[in-house]
Amino acid sequence: MTETVARKDTRAAEPTTGPLSADELALIDAYWRAANYLSVGQIYLFDNPLLRRPLRIEDVKPRLLGHWGTTPGLNFVYVHLNRVIKRDDLNAIFVTGPGHGGPGIVANVYLEGTYSEFYPHVGRDEEGLRRLFRQFSFPGGIPSHVAAEIPGSINEGGELGYSLAHAYGAAFDNPDLLVCCVVGDGEAETGPLATSWHSNKFLNPRTDGAVLPILHLNGYKIANPTFLARIPEDELRALFEGYGYAPRFVTGSDPTSMHQLMAATLDEVLAEIRAIQQRARAGADSSRPRWPMIVLRTPKGWTGPSEVDGVPIEGTFRSHQVPLADLAHRPDLLRRLEEWLRSYRPDELFDETGALRPEIAALAPRGDRRMGANPHANGGLLTRPLELPDFRDYAVDVPEPGVTTAEATRVLGAYLRDVIARNPTNFRLMGPDETNSNRLSAVFETTDRAWVAERLPEDDHLAPDGRVMEVLSEHLCQGWLEGYLLTGRHGLFNSYEAFIHIVDSMFNQFAKWLEVSNRIPWRRPVPSLTYLLSSHVWRQDHNGFSHQDPGFIDIAVNKKADVIRVYLPPDANCLLSVTDHCLRSRQYVNIIVAGKQPALQYLSMEEAIAHCARGVGVWEWASNDDGDPDVVLACAGDIPTLETLAAAALLREHLPDLKVRVVNVVDLMRLQPPSEHPHGLPDAEFDALFTRDRPVIFAYHGYPWLIHRLTYRRTNHDELHVRGYKEEGTTTTPFDMVMLNDLDRFHLVMDVIDRVPGLAQRAVGLRQRMVDERLRARAHTRETGDDAPKVRDWVWPGSRPPEHAGVDARRGEPA
Amino acid sequence: MTETVARKDTRAAEPTTGPLSADELALIDAYWRAANYLSVGQIYLFDNPLLRRPLRIEDVKPRLLGHWGTTPGLNFVYVHLNRVIKRDDLNAIFVTGPGHGGPGIVANVYLEGTYSEFYPHVGRDEEGLRRLFRQFSFPGGIPSHVAAEIPGSINEGGELGYSLAHAYGAAFDNPDLLVCCVVGDGEAETGPLATSWHSNKFLNPRTDGAVLPILHLNGYKIANPTFLARIPEDELRALFEGYGYAPRFVTGSDPTSMHQLMAATLDEVLAEIRAIQQRARAGADSSRPRWPMIVLRTPKGWTGPSEVDGVPIEGTFRSHQVPLADLAHRPDLLRRLEEWLRSYRPDELFDETGALRPEIAALAPRGDRRMGANPHANGGLLTRPLELPDFRDYAVDVPEPGVTTAEATRVLGAYLRDVIARNPTNFRLMGPDETNSNRLSAVFETTDRAWVAERLPEDDHLAPDGRVMEVLSEHLCQGWLEGYLLTGRHGLFNSYEAFIHIVDSMFNQFAKWLEVSNRIPWRRPVPSLTYLLSSHVWRQDHNGFSHQDPGFIDIAVNKKADVIRVYLPPDANCLLSVTDHCLRSRQYVNIIVAGKQPALQYLSMEEAIAHCARGVGVWEWASNDDGDPDVVLACAGDIPTLETLAAAALLREHLPDLKVRVVNVVDLMRLQPPSEHPHGLPDAEFDALFTRDRPVIFAYHGYPWLIHRLTYRRTNHDELHVRGYKEEGTTTTPFDMVMLNDLDRFHLVMDVIDRVPGLAQRAVGLRQRMVDERLRARAHTRETGDDAPKVRDWVWPGSRPPEHAGVDARRGEPA
Repeated sequence: MTETVARKDTRAAEPTTGPLSADELALIDAYWRAANYLSVGQIYLFDNPLLRRPLRIEDVKPRLLGHWGTTPGLNFVYVHLNRVIKRDDLNAIFVTGPGHGGPGIVANVYLEGTYSEFYPHVGRDEEGLRRLFRQFSFPGGIPSHVAAEIPGSINEGGELGYSLAHAYGAAFDNPDLLVCCVVGDGEAETGPLATSWHSNKFLNPRTDGAVLPILHLNGYKIANPTFLARIPEDELRALFEGYGYAPRFVTGSDPTSMHQLMAATLDEVLAEIRAIQQRARAGADSSRPRWPMIVLRTPKGWTGPSEVDGVPIEGTFRSHQVPLADLAHRPDLLRRLEEWLRSYRPDELFDETGALRPEIAALAPRGDRRMGANPHANGGLLTRPLELPDFRDYAVDVPEPGVTTAEATRVLGAYLRDVIARNPTNFRLMGPDETNSNRLSAVFETTDRAWVAERLPEDDHLAPDGRVMEVLSEHLCQGWLEGYLLTGRHGLFNSYEAFIHIVDSMFNQFAKWLEVSNRIPWRRPVPSLTYLLSSHVWRQDHNGFSHQDPGFIDIAVNKKADVIRVYLPPDANCLLSVTDHCLRSRQYVNIIVAGKQPALQYLSMEEAIAHCARGVGVWEWASNDDGDPDVVLACAGDIPTLETLAAAALLREHLPDLKVRVVNVVDLMRLQPPSEHPHGLPDAEFDALFTRDRPVIFAYHGYPWLIHRLTYRRTNHDELHVRGYKEEGTTTTPFDMVMLNDLDRFHLVMDVIDRVPGLAQRAVGLRQRMVDERLRARAHTRETGDDAPKVRDWVWPGSRPPEHAGVDARRGEPA
Repeated sequence: MTETVARKDTRAAEPTTGPLSADELALIDAYWRAANYLSVGQIYLFDNPLLRRPLRIEDVKPRLLGHWGTTPGLNFVYVHLNRVIKRDDLNAIFVTGPGHGGPGIVANVYLEGTYSEFYPHVGRDEEGLRRLFRQFSFPGGIPSHVAAEIPGSINEGGELGYSLAHAYGAAFDNPDLLVCCVVGDGEAETGPLATSWHSNKFLNPRTDGAVLPILHLNGYKIANPTFLARIPEDELRALFEGYGYAPRFVTGSDPTSMHQLMAATLDEVLAEIRAIQQRARAGADSSRPRWPMIVLRTPKGWTGPSEVDGVPIEGTFRSHQVPLADLAHRPDLLRRLEEWLRSYRPDELFDETGALRPEIAALAPRGDRRMGANPHANGGLLTRPLELPDFRDYAVDVPEPGVTTAEATRVLGAYLRDVIARNPTNFRLMGPDETNSNRLSAVFETTDRAWVAERLPEDDHLAPDGRVMEVLSEHLCQGWLEGYLLTGRHGLFNSYEAFIHIVDSMFNQFAKWLEVSNRIPWRRPVPSLTYLLSSHVWRQDHNGFSHQDPGFIDIAVNKKADVIRVYLPPDANCLLSVTDHCLRSRQYVNIIVAGKQPALQYLSMEEAIAHCARGVGVWEWASNDDGDPDVVLACAGDIPTLETLAAAALLREHLPDLKVRVVNVVDLMRLQPPSEHPHGLPDAEFDALFTRDRPVIFAYHGYPWLIHRLTYRRTNHDELHVRGYKEEGTTTTPFDMVMLNDLDRFHLVMDVIDRVPGLAQRAVGLRQRMVDERLRARAHTRETGDDAPKVRDWVWPGSRPPEHAGVDARRGEPA
């Protein structure tokens, strides 16, 4: 079926000579044919993997799933990279952007031997090929994307758009690494990818590795052309020059000419990359280089069926998925499939045992240089623990609870400064231009913002080797960090709480990657992805409603419990303790929510450590329940903690015989049953804290329903009443904001009065007084623009009776 | 303080002559000064709005909130647009991309008179000015972004990145409209904005309006330069030429020269736009035009304080926010503030009553031509209801329940085809290249995909005037649709369920916009944003784990109940009924989840209409409870409904005396109490359906916790057991997938046995049989790659006793 190997050449003149000798060319083409054969085999074949007998319908999978379109182009790039890796002993990894690129990359890591090393049951023989083919897009098998199951992958290509950001993340601080990133032209239409090209303004040629982007223009998405394939070449060239690259075009469809052209182009761009790095590393040139990139324009479904029933397939969107279908009812198409498979001449490629012939196999690099085996793509292998300073050294002095103030994130900034100082090549701090705004500015005492573009004298802390990555794109921050973590390094992403939703879907995909990795024995644990969400919902005074959304936690807890951790430290010392814990952890997504404004401090360092280790506990200094409370005031989050304590103080003042217990929750996952989350409190401990039957007024940082969702199986759930954010917001003051959402101290007192049996009658006056206090507070803010000093400057009145002096929070631990 | 009006000119030669006469120039400059004065006033002044007395600290707001940096540039663009709108009688709206642009746009809509018409208490006199100033970033006032409260706005600029997509959405099908879109250079770093430039490949010059993008390069974000401001101008020019535009640069800082340059440039680009439109509309040219755009490079904080304490402010990131702070302790800065304000010469601008002097006010357009009053920016004013075909005409014949099959979205496709045919200029179907994949292909019988780039013969349904918008960017689909809806037109966004999370944050912002709009009397209701989520979690057979995420509903229900609707139609006729309802609605976000695969059909059209109107109901034909069930099998979503019915059939077969009630939920919001959602079922009705004390086994489409969250206040909550998706997935078959998550019929039967008191003992054999059936089903898929015919081809066995023939689902209505 020679017509399937298309020879049309519509776009450009193709050289038939080039750097490859005839032998080299023949071997490269054979290797490529082998990869293509294995790709088609995975999509179609249930049995008869080497076509040792004529193809029968029983040899074909009952359900044809998978995608052919992008695969031959990926195989083409892979084999050409193999040539130069081997020749130059390059340290390279391959990032596969296009969706459904699985068959191609699996074929290649199988050919190079990696796959069978990771999965010994898929050997390098006929039976191994049968298994390799059968498992693809098969129940319990492997998906059609380059998922975590596939050796050498750090980018799934299921949800599109993140390949190039991952590639740059992998290259940062890996000066010897070459990250070859194939970007699909479908993927290139996404927003995250469209801004990822600008990552070159953040890549330091002196201390970072190189990224070689290859835009694979095969022209079509599922049913549509891609817009980059349908703009004139001068426009396309201008676009990438505008992005700061020096693009090379590799265009055509004749394999021989394309092999020569690709080899010549790769040689050229690698020389250019070396020259850029040498210039920068010799110290001669600190300007932003114009990195090379390649635009590879090949037919979609290249070497596949050219037409079916008179309708063109190769080179059109119709080869996106399975070009020949309905084989059970179309014996002619079954013959076409066999011809297509045989067009790759499998007998020339595999020996009688089913092994790739040694002269072809010799083209692949050896050992860790194979892209499927490169340890950078299994970053846990390379992870060094962070050198962490002792977080206790940054403690805020808290002589008594609730009287002094600090800005939690500013305190953390000093700690992070020293984390950066001690880990100058394997820790980065990401954020969308909010490091200062989130008050982590101490980090600039030791480092700068990474910036490889023009600098002016009035700039503040910009340098090519800065450890702080600031770009107004949460997508880039997340994508870079994911790439950095998956290659075994550490980082922290600080963001405004509301806008972390921009990367909800990236978070979902990353959490799924971790979930799958946990099931793969050879994937080694990587450092956790830790979010510090500050500038949170309760303090968006002038930004107003658009900046108020605490719902990221809700998204996160949908993912598997074994990869999700959520912390709401109530003060600076707790924030230090929690962050230290998170930076030591592996394979989690940690979410820390902490305010940046001056706020009351409650716990000494020692108390904070104990409280955070427990995750939830009674604050005895704020309680007067003597083990048998009339009501539990629970709180999670800094502002809810403040309001809860103020409510407790009001109750103590006005209803001194009411027994109030204050419970603070740092580790939100403690609320779930242990069957749902490894941090879950046993029911007995939960009941000991929250009682089995007393009203619990729970003041929560986020949307209140989450607390119900986490606790609906607990004994006392019917008595749980939650206050939180309920989409009531506007331009506010801090106290106005909590009042708008009924989370304020006065309302919490009203809740207690309404919920504790018998109290409503007894406390009619107090209830009315609370109503009046709220009205007065509201009126004050609306008149003056600021909160009344009485609420704004409130401190814990002090309540330890002298005989309890020295009692610490550990006393709150459940029996 | 003359030095605050900077005269430095570092970037380019500026013409001092141009199209403006000296009088025109003086007036334009006066108008600009007035807008700048009002902007500074809003940020700082509590009183003394016209500086009729020396500025005292009491005249300054106690909390200084707001942002100066971007404002003078916005004011500059606005006044220049006013000139040409008035001269040419243009129909134009203004989209403000930069964050914190509020003070500038509020100043302008106030100056043109619009603000006082919408908010009569803010009159055009000194008292009005006092109120205008005081309300800004003040409790209960207006936020610092161009939010829904601000006349003329369709883009908030709180979360950044969507201005240009909104602008294009507004321009589609508005051939006479000019949408001027100022893009901040911070915003331009975001992914969504970076791909929005490519929207020009989808804008038809014949039938759409024009978008004039103005990239405002003021050089800085919060604390950082922007990368677009720090690349050479030839690179910047190449970038925008690569994006397909013809960029013009307006660069400088001297107001006089800049006025002339901006006026000349605006004249030029408007002439170009007119020429493009005339060529296209004369039919002479159907090629993609190279639309003009402007790069406006001005100092950040232009005309503000040039330095403070020797540190440069104007032209640096330090003018991003409030340039002069701590006024209470720095009398010198208070004097600087007064000088800054007086540098705009307010006495020349406002008369003794505080009104803008008439000769200056005359520069603004009149009536609806004022950009704050243009009805396109209050789209509900222009909304025409859709001409909808009768959805009953597309009904699938369902002679008996659960026996025949149909592909729900394919059925819907025919209906949408005719919606498009009848509404050729005010309805668009958006989707990321998935219209065919989601089986809505019938729409291509009447229309094409919008495409204004090169076309080839093998292309499928591409045309400049196509009504289907396909681009591989959920951000663009969402942004375009938001812009289209907010200007009063209709649409539907179809997406793979998992990847709609990509626009979580855009959804959040849009829902908030609707929530705020509902409180604004002059904002007229706009058509709802309707999502059709198909290719859902349960049928990602080969895509696997990365394509499985039903959590968008969880995000949605965090928003205010009065703007959120969620529908899970179980079959094609229900999908038709629900979609018709959604397309008629206003001011909602509707989420419809529906499968695309062949699936059993249950309800005739009349039954479907009744069922959807109720939103939840007993399916009597599947129940045998006689009003007093032993167990309730509830279900929401097509796959859970199938498995629930199969479980009901198994129970009837094996435990014929067990009284089973099947309840199907279409409208998820019916589960909430009426206090939480307007669709909420009253408790009595809920109890009548779900009983007060019988076990309820609820099979749900998404993450199971949501059902607990929605129902935790219901009487029978303790007896509610939910099965749903719990992040168990891989490459599967349909039945394998439900088994992985324990949502399959066999497991549901086991749940019933485990939950109905006394049954466990009685049904030991059946339970074991269910375990065995599952093992067999699992083994079959793993061996053959397909589900066993027994489960795959299952149909409802038929159960209506003859005497019940003709009974319809309405019988299920709660008493």
